[in-house]
Amino acid sequence: MKKYLEEANKNVSISSKGWAVDSKDSKFKAYSFTRHPLGAKDILIEILYAGICHSDIHNARSEWAPGIYPMVPGHEIAGRVIAVGKDVKKFKVGDYAGVGCMVNSCGECEPCKQSNEQFCENGVVFTYNSVDRFHDDIVTYGGYSDNIVVSEDFAITVPKEADIQKVAPLLCAGITTYSPLKFSKIKKGDKVAVAGFGGLGLMAVKYALKLGAEVSVFARNKNKEKEALELGVKALYDSPDPKKIKDRFDLILSTIPTKYDLTPYLELLKVGGELAIVGLPPSADHVGVELSTLVFKANKKVYGSLIGGIKETQEMLDYSVANNIYPEIELITADKIDMAYENLTNGKAKFRYVIDMKKSI
Amino acid sequence: MKKYLEEANKNVSISSKGWAVDSKDSKFKAYSFTRHPLGAKDILIEILYAGICHSDIHNARSEWAPGIYPMVPGHEIAGRVIAVGKDVKKFKVGDYAGVGCMVNSCGECEPCKQSNEQFCENGVVFTYNSVDRFHDDIVTYGGYSDNIVVSEDFAITVPKEADIQKVAPLLCAGITTYSPLKFSKIKKGDKVAVAGFGGLGLMAVKYALKLGAEVSVFARNKNKEKEALELGVKALYDSPDPKKIKDRFDLILSTIPTKYDLTPYLELLKVGGELAIVGLPPSADHVGVELSTLVFKANKKVYGSLIGGIKETQEMLDYSVANNIYPEIELITADKIDMAYENLTNGKAKFRYVIDMKKSI
Repeated sequence: MKKYLEEANKNVSISSKGWAVDSKDSKFKAYSFTRHPLGAKDILIEILYAGICHSDIHNARSEWAPGIYPMVPGHEIAGRVIAVGKDVKKFKVGDYAGVGCMVNSCGECEPCKQSNEQFCENGVVFTYNSVDRFHDDIVTYGGYSDNIVVSEDFAITVPKEADIQKVAPLLCAGITTYSPLKFSKIKKGDKVAVAGFGGLGLMAVKYALKLGAEVSVFARNKNKEKEALELGVKALYDSPDPKKIKDRFDLILSTIPTKYDLTPYLELLKVGGELAIVGLPPSADHVGVELSTLVFKANKKVYGSLIGGIKETQEMLDYSVANNIYPEIELITADKIDMAYENLTNGKAKFRYVIDMKKSI
Repeated sequence: MKKYLEEANKNVSISSKGWAVDSKDSKFKAYSFTRHPLGAKDILIEILYAGICHSDIHNARSEWAPGIYPMVPGHEIAGRVIAVGKDVKKFKVGDYAGVGCMVNSCGECEPCKQSNEQFCENGVVFTYNSVDRFHDDIVTYGGYSDNIVVSEDFAITVPKEADIQKVAPLLCAGITTYSPLKFSKIKKGDKVAVAGFGGLGLMAVKYALKLGAEVSVFARNKNKEKEALELGVKALYDSPDPKKIKDRFDLILSTIPTKYDLTPYLELLKVGGELAIVGLPPSADHVGVELSTLVFKANKKVYGSLIGGIKETQEMLDYSVANNIYPEIELITADKIDMAYENLTNGKAKFRYVIDMKKSI
């Protein structure tokens, strides 16, 4: 029996092996650590696949805020349940389970009660690089590792027919794009544009098409036009020119990760249309919208969207599996994480990198 | 018979007397000019009252864009119909009528068809300081004058029981605050906060209360607290501190005309709540919102609002008269316009200034 499974059964701290950075400049190396014991409502997941998200790089390199080191990133986790606490109801041993960006929250504030845990007024415990106030303030470690212990309330049920290799990235890239489409109540016949056509943009396009929207894409270069049209996109534009483009959109979902001017996107909205922001440039490149622009392009709403709550993440996953909506992925072993980071940073990554854990240990 | 009425009957250009500035630095002086002849769908209004709006000052002083001089400002107009074109259906001689910020638009674009004429894709003809492409490119002159000719489609029916002195400011200050409350679908029991408690703020509070909302106010100083509480406001706060204020709002309507930080207002919204901007600081004092703020305070929508369409302006006026919702006004004669501008600029104006035309000519 595996050591961590024995530990789970004995109710002691659980040994994990993972890959960590020691500092913002370091490369990944093997790292052994422990997770909190299996509580009555917890499940132990043997991790099968862990996606690499661009925000992992921002965290590992302390680009958004000083990180806690050693850091084991990873918040796109898919695996199999190998132990359950005595009060667990949602899972049994052998089930697939997923974990996204969050592992705990207060459960009592208004946002938590609405399953908007990402906005917990008392602070979310993130899957890694976070202090877990519900477990003696231990630091959380993420999915680049062989197992994770998590409350069943923060674990996502993964249907057994799911394409499990591709499930991991749904827990972040999927929910990030699904959530604003639902928040803006996109329905059949609505006109949606997706700005930026990388990993997030592609997921946004797939969901919007499945919801029955007429979908256009803004991408800086046209080399993905064929791919977009084959998916069912109406048009791919290389720039948002309100004079040349006749369509006016109900929603523009911006996944653009660089500095840009929002004004033409506001002009391209219908009266009452919405501009949802899910991409952010590096913090040095501030992008904002002037109030005067909002007033003179009035009755067009701008909002940001940040992942999604647990209930909605479950809904997204069920919807994705039922409709066969997945990202394009490239499986790697853990010794290739540094290479993956380099390619992601240089814009050379073609697909979402997913670490194959079974081949990495 | 008055000269301008004779001219209307003869279908020739109509003489008007008004008060104009010659340049951005000049004071007001009497000015005689002509308006276009009475068309089949036009009405001739004898102006009884004209409100002075702060934006008149921005226009007269070329603070937003270079003005066209001589300029006769005024887009809060209430008067009596004294002549109607042969195809006019909405008005008869003797009726009260009002004119707001617009006197024409294309009528054919999508926004116009939805009666969002303020967003006409081919350009609105404003009530003054605008080139009227529907009438040989003559310059439009506003309400600081004895009469106006306007298409019945851009004239607002004023019920005969209206408090006509107080109707004029509704055509701008009224619709500016009524429109975002309706756009955000405010209903009984919603929590609304109004930021800035000047002329616009007071109107916003009155409408929000009448719509059944629980209303709070943010005002820099507390000297208007008694007035606010007497109106039925729940609380007046002198600063938006999310730590001290427990309420979270469905809508915050900002009428603040100076530079400020939007972040605490975003924090004070419920998830799904909206921040509507109707006040703008002078253009030198840029105020914006960072995309990163929107994303990290996610699912809170920001939009600007700009007056309202003709159909909604009519709805607002009927609603205001039926519910006895009016601004506080101070009647002046036209020789006091310069004084009014000075007081408005210095923040010394206590009420909305309204020019009593009958006493001014």
